[in-house]
Amino acid sequence: MARYSIGIDFGTESARAVLAEVATGEVVATAVHPYRHGVLDRALPAGPRLDPEWALQHPGDWLEALEVLLRQMAAAGGDEVAGIGVDFTSCTLLAVRGDGTPLAFEDAFRNRPHAWPMLWKHHAAQPYADRINDSGWEGLRWYGGRTSSEWLWAKVWQVLEEAPDVFAAADRFIEGGDWIVWQLVGREVRSSCQAGYKAHWQPGEGYPPATLLQQLHPGLPAVLDRLKEPQPLGTSAGGLTRAWASRSGLRPGTPVAVAVIDAHAAVPGVGVADAGRLVAIVGTSTCHMILDEQRSPIPGISGVVQGGILPGFYGYEAGQASVGDMLEWFVQTYGVYRYGDLASAFAGLETEAASLVPGQSGLLALDWWNGCRTPLVDSELSGALLGLTLATQPSEIYRALLEATAFGTRLVLETLEDGGISIRDIHACGGLASKSPLLLQLYADVTGRALYAYDVPYASALGAAIHGAVAGEIHADLLAATRTMGARPVRQHAPREKAGRVYDELYGIYRELHAALSSPEGAIKRLRRLRHGVTRKFAWPDRYQSAEVST
Amino acid sequence: MARYSIGIDFGTESARAVLAEVATGEVVATAVHPYRHGVLDRALPAGPRLDPEWALQHPGDWLEALEVLLRQMAAAGGDEVAGIGVDFTSCTLLAVRGDGTPLAFEDAFRNRPHAWPMLWKHHAAQPYADRINDSGWEGLRWYGGRTSSEWLWAKVWQVLEEAPDVFAAADRFIEGGDWIVWQLVGREVRSSCQAGYKAHWQPGEGYPPATLLQQLHPGLPAVLDRLKEPQPLGTSAGGLTRAWASRSGLRPGTPVAVAVIDAHAAVPGVGVADAGRLVAIVGTSTCHMILDEQRSPIPGISGVVQGGILPGFYGYEAGQASVGDMLEWFVQTYGVYRYGDLASAFAGLETEAASLVPGQSGLLALDWWNGCRTPLVDSELSGALLGLTLATQPSEIYRALLEATAFGTRLVLETLEDGGISIRDIHACGGLASKSPLLLQLYADVTGRALYAYDVPYASALGAAIHGAVAGEIHADLLAATRTMGARPVRQHAPREKAGRVYDELYGIYRELHAALSSPEGAIKRLRRLRHGVTRKFAWPDRYQSAEVST
Repeated sequence: MARYSIGIDFGTESARAVLAEVATGEVVATAVHPYRHGVLDRALPAGPRLDPEWALQHPGDWLEALEVLLRQMAAAGGDEVAGIGVDFTSCTLLAVRGDGTPLAFEDAFRNRPHAWPMLWKHHAAQPYADRINDSGWEGLRWYGGRTSSEWLWAKVWQVLEEAPDVFAAADRFIEGGDWIVWQLVGREVRSSCQAGYKAHWQPGEGYPPATLLQQLHPGLPAVLDRLKEPQPLGTSAGGLTRAWASRSGLRPGTPVAVAVIDAHAAVPGVGVADAGRLVAIVGTSTCHMILDEQRSPIPGISGVVQGGILPGFYGYEAGQASVGDMLEWFVQTYGVYRYGDLASAFAGLETEAASLVPGQSGLLALDWWNGCRTPLVDSELSGALLGLTLATQPSEIYRALLEATAFGTRLVLETLEDGGISIRDIHACGGLASKSPLLLQLYADVTGRALYAYDVPYASALGAAIHGAVAGEIHADLLAATRTMGARPVRQHAPREKAGRVYDELYGIYRELHAALSSPEGAIKRLRRLRHGVTRKFAWPDRYQSAEVST
Repeated sequence: MARYSIGIDFGTESARAVLAEVATGEVVATAVHPYRHGVLDRALPAGPRLDPEWALQHPGDWLEALEVLLRQMAAAGGDEVAGIGVDFTSCTLLAVRGDGTPLAFEDAFRNRPHAWPMLWKHHAAQPYADRINDSGWEGLRWYGGRTSSEWLWAKVWQVLEEAPDVFAAADRFIEGGDWIVWQLVGREVRSSCQAGYKAHWQPGEGYPPATLLQQLHPGLPAVLDRLKEPQPLGTSAGGLTRAWASRSGLRPGTPVAVAVIDAHAAVPGVGVADAGRLVAIVGTSTCHMILDEQRSPIPGISGVVQGGILPGFYGYEAGQASVGDMLEWFVQTYGVYRYGDLASAFAGLETEAASLVPGQSGLLALDWWNGCRTPLVDSELSGALLGLTLATQPSEIYRALLEATAFGTRLVLETLEDGGISIRDIHACGGLASKSPLLLQLYADVTGRALYAYDVPYASALGAAIHGAVAGEIHADLLAATRTMGARPVRQHAPREKAGRVYDELYGIYRELHAALSSPEGAIKRLRRLRHGVTRKFAWPDRYQSAEVST
């Protein structure tokens, strides 16, 4: 009855599942199911076009993946599944009826973009985020001083202002993870993780006060009635409904944990249950998670929430906006032509870049291809590459990009340390971390910290399974479950002292450029403004203005 | 007897010849002959290795090309060749015996790098250039305030200091162009063009004073006896020797003009014989030539010499170090993989880049891949690229590099204008100018000047032929010959006003970065110093420092 737990990890393009042994954390089965509609960023399924910056998802894709994956895990685990955990991207926000029906499923709203789930990377709500930031609300100090266009309040405000009928019809605004749990157990139970990091809810203080919301927009206080008081992580939200038991082949009543954000689930996933150990989930972008005994207002971080990652600790989140996607940009625009395909290009560039030594190329990059999250919280920045010569090789550029993400990581570390958080070592997981030993070594060299690498393909899904095991009352609490079931590191990279000396100098230049080029009147912001102005203002009929000269 | 003249253009990898009608300048025959040994930058022909920064040539290659090309021109022109002109890269410097024999031809010196002709782009004499620049000699004001490692005094000093026996054996130090003329006419006649721009000789003032040379190094004043008083451009150096007449098939006694530098020969080649018209020879690098009535000391230019380009004018030279070679770097490292070969890549990128509009990419480059000549005179700078995003396309980078060379051209123009030179329009020739209409349009847009394009494959060789026609007394002087024989523009590009407004803004950012990033403590200089330090100081046995973690 109590041998396994299931973790389901809802990502951006697919969902992943693991079946883990509750006694050891060993993963005995995994499965992946891609979303049929992927990310809706050009048009709705029924046809209407979407503006740039929009990113939606289809709740039907989640349900399909949920059913397929649970069935596969049930087939592997039989009657011995003790609990289920769910992690989800966040803030991925749905407008639903009081019974949980997404407005997007109704004929009246099928063609209305605002009625569809806004994916975490939906950026069209930026003007509303700006207005919240301009309000001077002091609660933002627990969120690095700024809210994000990706988070709940900007997104609901966008619906309120741009589609008042959708807003009026929405009995609830709910996170994708909380909505999945609602489907599984038949009642609405919110997670304090999603609420804490993405809806500015703080334990004991609640959501932003109605007076603030009223001041921002008279319609906003009504949203408070459409949320719910969230529950701590590790709580059981209830037992699996008969309907979902029959769809999945699992026992009715199997306990389901309250949802957790995907990045936050990775912390128990890699077995980290102490303060001072920075977990870096290195993928398209990087999320940094760390536990501490204190709550400090640190400028530029994403947020700090008591119990937001694991009970008994304040959980801090920070991040880098441009990591794997910046490297893939280089591989896609150059490497695939040189090496034939994406995998060969990554492998070829990794090998060539690893043969170089620190500082040898004379190159330095600013890793802002997709903006800067911590500490600048500025998505309008763009990248830079300095030191190019006629002898510069592509592998040198690739290494400079890797190094730039390492410098970005060091800057996140220093931002946390300046805020009073002590950081002993780094625990790296995520797609890129498992693919690039060079990246891991550079991160150790540049940060001067021991870096632990994990061979766990689905750290978040394993973390979700750990939540499931706690909901199933196999372990006393999340900390105990993490210590028992969390993955163990397979490799330790130590900082190389000599490399560290060179990288200290390069990092000094990086810091200097970071400050100089990000200023409002700096070159990069001016280039961005010019670019926006040009594409908005001008039509360009004439490519050349030339004439033959009569001789 | 007087229908044609021959121009021979000695370049870096090959020599080119034209046979031109003296009455019209029409080119009736052309030929190219590559140098058998190319540039000697790794080893001498007999084996000894060369240090980095060295670049030598083989005088035998020049003689072979001279004979082959003269024979081909003689075959086409028959008895109707009135004169011969020779242009040459400069300062390309030989140590020779009193009879003109290169020391490199002697067994005793065959294995001695310092005995071989130092090609213009030999950069190993930089420490000596630095010492001359540190001397505070006021004569440098006619050379932008600095001498170059590429020029005569740094190169002879290198020989004196590093190979005293070679120095002692050298009865003459002579430019390649002057040496070719010596071969053809059997007597040593120096050109005021080469002496003026590369040996700091000024009409009426002579070479640098012996007191200065004595102060730099007690051995240097002896060099003055191993140069010779130069002759004005358009002078006949003498008639073709019987030996060379028999080798070439031309008449003995055919007049040969004093030599001229290749870039300087392009000015008559494109028919420019007035002040205010900037001739840009756009190739691997770009040389800018302009005539004026005044001699002004302008910081950052390469030099100003009375009659140095054409009689009756002060000839100014300035330059950009990174143009075609920077574009080719991009095409070689990226384009050839994408498009298959060099020609298709240039064509494909030109087409794609031409479809973009000013400012659209948000990119800006600093064109320092090979350093900056005018106005910074700093070969230690390296390039930068700002504004990169996940959406950046290779064609946008290519266009940003083209635009950066246009900004560099505008900066050269403004440097000359700040020095009191007025510039009416631009006359562009050279390989890149004939290949890229987009480049020409961008130069017009960015500089706000009309730009005239020429369809003349060998402008320098045609210029040399114009010198030959004057030596043959077909025309009264070089100005008259230029007006009669110089090429005519085939196309005029006018500046597009709207594009100019966008480029004014981008150029403002370019100027700001130019100042900020070139400073001694700026990022680019620090990256270069770090790079030098790293490659000199460290051995790197350990690529990774990692260990398995026992579980």
